[in-house]
Amino acid sequence: MPSGETRAIVPAGQTIAEIGEFAMVAAITARLGTTSSVLLGPGDDAAVLACPDGRVVATTDLLIENRHFRRAWSSAYDVGRKAAAQNLADVIAMGAAPTGLLVAVAVPGELEVTWALELTDGLRDEAAIVGAVLVGGDLTRSDLVVISVTALGDLGGAPPITRAGARVGDVVAVCGRLGWAEAGRAVLARGFRSPRAVVTAHQRPEPPYDAAPEARRLGAHALLDVSDGLVQDLGHVATASAVTIDLDGSALEPDQPVRDVGAALGQDPLTFVLSGGEDHALAACFPSGAVLPARWKVVGRVLAGDPGVTLDGAPYEGSGGWDHFRELPVKNG
Amino acid sequence: MPSGETRAIVPAGQTIAEIGEFAMVAAITARLGTTSSVLLGPGDDAAVLACPDGRVVATTDLLIENRHFRRAWSSAYDVGRKAAAQNLADVIAMGAAPTGLLVAVAVPGELEVTWALELTDGLRDEAAIVGAVLVGGDLTRSDLVVISVTALGDLGGAPPITRAGARVGDVVAVCGRLGWAEAGRAVLARGFRSPRAVVTAHQRPEPPYDAAPEARRLGAHALLDVSDGLVQDLGHVATASAVTIDLDGSALEPDQPVRDVGAALGQDPLTFVLSGGEDHALAACFPSGAVLPARWKVVGRVLAGDPGVTLDGAPYEGSGGWDHFRELPVKNG
Repeated sequence: MPSGETRAIVPAGQTIAEIGEFAMVAAITARLGTTSSVLLGPGDDAAVLACPDGRVVATTDLLIENRHFRRAWSSAYDVGRKAAAQNLADVIAMGAAPTGLLVAVAVPGELEVTWALELTDGLRDEAAIVGAVLVGGDLTRSDLVVISVTALGDLGGAPPITRAGARVGDVVAVCGRLGWAEAGRAVLARGFRSPRAVVTAHQRPEPPYDAAPEARRLGAHALLDVSDGLVQDLGHVATASAVTIDLDGSALEPDQPVRDVGAALGQDPLTFVLSGGEDHALAACFPSGAVLPARWKVVGRVLAGDPGVTLDGAPYEGSGGWDHFRELPVKNG
Repeated sequence: MPSGETRAIVPAGQTIAEIGEFAMVAAITARLGTTSSVLLGPGDDAAVLACPDGRVVATTDLLIENRHFRRAWSSAYDVGRKAAAQNLADVIAMGAAPTGLLVAVAVPGELEVTWALELTDGLRDEAAIVGAVLVGGDLTRSDLVVISVTALGDLGGAPPITRAGARVGDVVAVCGRLGWAEAGRAVLARGFRSPRAVVTAHQRPEPPYDAAPEARRLGAHALLDVSDGLVQDLGHVATASAVTIDLDGSALEPDQPVRDVGAALGQDPLTFVLSGGEDHALAACFPSGAVLPARWKVVGRVLAGDPGVTLDGAPYEGSGGWDHFRELPVKNG
């Protein structure tokens, strides 16, 4: 974390209202890098980014304080990493290479300048993992921190890998963690800070970005970012592809830290695995003959049948994921 | 406004929490059109949009309820029109043709479904003016309505028209209204609803979109969207181009409705013209010999000198525009 550097140049406790919008934007912009994709960076009416493929992949997400993150639970740097990660994972899950982020932020005037700079650093550093940079944005004021991230990417001449390509007979495989971030959220919501591994997973997800080009090489028919819950997100694949996806319960054994949280909180840890989002694992449907590297774990099969997700051949009656409005687990099917 | 149609299919008073996130997204998506630029629309991890030029122009803005709009002052439809307009104007002001919008929205669960649908209609209809469509988005919950719009556009093989191209000897011209939206905001803030013309200008700006390609044909060296105030925005041109911009006070005579508001509220109406944003007029710097159509009004000249904006050769001591954090007029220079 570059917070040491930040603190060295900004008076301790200085607020954004004190330095004003334009000085804040200048301080943020000064921290950003560039790449050959950036033809015109921040400072004009709009940015100009190369998209040599002739198509651009684009996605956007909104993060609201106390709903998608808490300042008491996560550092500004981690919020930045997470906000970038969830959008970059969406671009990656199309089989594209992220090129640029646009970030619009609203913050309370009383917020410290260092918070906004560390948020910027987190966004920048997460983008750098995949070779992307911040190319533009907007800064305004609100009572709660609001962060809107748009990620753009390039397909490099290849077709997008959508949710609609699953075929009967495919195997369903997952690369990345399942249930860790949700277990971490459950722990934090009860006022605990451990197990550290799941708390960190909630604060700063680590999408397996390089697994997406690998999935393309392996012939993936469908690819997606697991952001809202495995059952719910695979349900979108099932609907878009008009297939049934049957999950193999024995392949979805929760990892040890997730089991620990389940035991401590008296919850079935499988719920975290099946309905927890925010780890940004990648799920893919591969031809049945594909030889998959070990990090791709086969968790189910694509069957003919009504669009939906089953567990060991039976309807899954638990929660499949999250509905932001009902604030209740979403019943599968 | 298609609200009649909306009301016919949605039970009166039904809230977003009642129908849930996924039904709401489906209802929104069903209202959207498409164009040949949309290679993959809403419903996957990300959208795919054509950018035949090999470059994409991109800009984003965040609108927060009670800061950028009020539900008591503006209909959902008008908020949608305005949210789209301010981003489309930024793309246009680069000399590009808008192709797509990504819209992330957070709303209270208690909000009526019809409000969200009418917002969608406003976004869609404003985009349609310039041939663009909504291609993706995000829907989540918050206590206040938050709208994040990202606009993408294509340069069609031409260079972007930036803020950095103004040259000594250029004339500065404006197409569109100045001060109307700010006069409307001042009227609404005092609880009035008239003069109707300025109130409407605040609720639903009408950027002169087709004036941007015209400016390119006329040889504009610099082009920008006046969104934060004429003096402030031209100040960015002056800085980026390392020139002085001298405004001609006699050419900036406020329009009659703006003068009426000034008289009624006891304010100098020139302040609305010089520091009011949100009309999304276009300002351009043209070669001195350019023959401009009547809708381009010459308001100043580009001079050698310190970067900044002067009025009739003298430093302008009034407000140049808006700083979202100081919530005070920004002093010019």
